Amino acid sequence: MTALEAVPGPRVPGALPPGPGGAAGWHAGLDVGGSKVLAVLLEDGLLRRTVRVPSRPGVTGVVATAADAVGRLCAAEGLAPGVLASVGVGLPGVVDAAAGTVAHAVNLGLEDAAPVAHLLGQALGGVRVALENDLNAAALGAARVLGLRGDLAFLSLGTGLAAGLLLDGRLRRGHRGAAGEVGHLPYRPDGPVCPCGQRGCLELYASGSALAAAWPSRTGRPPAQEVFAAASQGDAAAGGVRDRFVDAVAAAVLTLVLTCDVEHVVVGGGVAQLGQPLLVALEVALRARTATSPFLASLGVADRVQVVRPELLVAPIGAALAAAEGTGEAVAAVG
Amino acid sequence: MTALEAVPGPRVPGALPPGPGGAAGWHAGLDVGGSKVLAVLLEDGLLRRTVRVPSRPGVTGVVATAADAVGRLCAAEGLAPGVLASVGVGLPGVVDAAAGTVAHAVNLGLEDAAPVAHLLGQALGGVRVALENDLNAAALGAARVLGLRGDLAFLSLGTGLAAGLLLDGRLRRGHRGAAGEVGHLPYRPDGPVCPCGQRGCLELYASGSALAAAWPSRTGRPPAQEVFAAASQGDAAAGGVRDRFVDAVAAAVLTLVLTCDVEHVVVGGGVAQLGQPLLVALEVALRARTATSPFLASLGVADRVQVVRPELLVAPIGAALAAAEGTGEAVAAVG
Repeated sequence: MTALEAVPGPRVPGALPPGPGGAAGWHAGLDVGGSKVLAVLLEDGLLRRTVRVPSRPGVTGVVATAADAVGRLCAAEGLAPGVLASVGVGLPGVVDAAAGTVAHAVNLGLEDAAPVAHLLGQALGGVRVALENDLNAAALGAARVLGLRGDLAFLSLGTGLAAGLLLDGRLRRGHRGAAGEVGHLPYRPDGPVCPCGQRGCLELYASGSALAAAWPSRTGRPPAQEVFAAASQGDAAAGGVRDRFVDAVAAAVLTLVLTCDVEHVVVGGGVAQLGQPLLVALEVALRARTATSPFLASLGVADRVQVVRPELLVAPIGAALAAAEGTGEAVAAVG
Repeated sequence: MTALEAVPGPRVPGALPPGPGGAAGWHAGLDVGGSKVLAVLLEDGLLRRTVRVPSRPGVTGVVATAADAVGRLCAAEGLAPGVLASVGVGLPGVVDAAAGTVAHAVNLGLEDAAPVAHLLGQALGGVRVALENDLNAAALGAARVLGLRGDLAFLSLGTGLAAGLLLDGRLRRGHRGAAGEVGHLPYRPDGPVCPCGQRGCLELYASGSALAAAWPSRTGRPPAQEVFAAASQGDAAAGGVRDRFVDAVAAAVLTLVLTCDVEHVVVGGGVAQLGQPLLVALEVALRARTATSPFLASLGVADRVQVVRPELLVAPIGAALAAAEGTGEAVAAVG
């Protein structure tokens, strides 16, 4: 993606509600990460523009970067930000959607609850801004972009490992915002100490960071690309790294199925850039488990998995949908 | 419990809806297990009678046993079964509540979908019968009997290990009825082969069967009672068996919290007969994990756990509630 692109699609299924005052139909969505902000502009459910800008930390940095991204999207269409019906922002932290705050967003340099919705709304001249956890936003976006109607988990393989959950058409946040935190389930009791303080957490085996630690890049390409390429060319060490990684991801998928029994597990995040080879490896690992277990086979676990490449922008699109349609209230059932 | 008891309580909070024709207010609930059927009779939300009868296998056996249990409850109150507003039946299998069938109830000798609701309704002279998975029923019953309003998992430590989930006031059944099947998550990759075909499933470490295998009864008391008693008297071998068991149960609790983030984990099933010593051991195991992990500590995992003894009859009471109030539709939010 270049800095600012006009795109003809993908069409996001399901009409978005019109905005106020008849200016109507323009919605922005942002996915704010530790290194970059991805932003999209939708017009009546059609993806019109995307932009990527580098992140800046702290509440001032986050708000300024987000306002900058929205400003660029609007300028490219000749719009004033004030005509936007809503702006949705996905953030990697504990979001209080009602209060419009985010806390514990360590990668953004935000610890205490930061009133990002209010500040960004002000910066944009009064536009309505809604926040959502980034993985929840991605779950919403994945359901809509991929046209999936059943319950869904968006399993992100990035710096960490965690899932956004869409159950009965609603986002599942949980009692303390910990729903989908499968990365900190114990996986190897004798494993290394995790930054969370436990030992052998699943995240230490099934994340982009885990791959990077096991296979430091030799060519400058992302480690996941290198490992899978080398493994497919017969490099035994790379094959071992790949297989251990994929086995751990399979354990995460299984955990989501045997707890929430979601119909779809959409694997995303940086590692999902791999696309088809990741899906194939994951299906092989899951079928190896189901081959010995009629119980697992009856659940069709391998058939539930999809890989969504970052280019499909499900996280910022989902953030836009969450803001446009109200957060967590059966939004995925529309369309 | 003797064969048939009249009981003054516990009061089940939340008024049950009246039955048809003004005869009103009488509801029966059954928990059909592999060895026994527990049945309760409620009058306007008050537990009036309980009865226990031995199970018989197969669809004919299940229906006859259930009809017998209901008949005894009614006879003890001088009622004809026809005045019952509803009968709810919890069964250990895959229940299709809409169709009134249960399948894969291996412990009952039922493989194919059996129309238990229709057959039992006929046997009772036309009473409305609703089926529910036994752990789902127990989750409903636990929420009501214990007065818990938030999301809840009923974690059953019996022959197997599995949970019933009550999320946002609704039963979570899942895409293929596999929600809460935490017993078949891999726990020890080098462990023994599980009857399900996988290796080292959590159920092989965290169930009544697991305790019985690790500590064959020497006195005729249930193995869980023997192990905990011996461990508390300083028997090192028993202490090891107890601690490994409790660690595995703690892993199950953690799995439910880090996937669904339920506010309450109610531990039930046969092993819960232990009561307070089980709760204390479980809290110790969970606090040992949270002691090294600020992340887990922030989630208050240990504070979410309760143990409910079988005497509280949450499973048959929940089955009665499911039938009386409609299944899975926010019934726990009442009262």
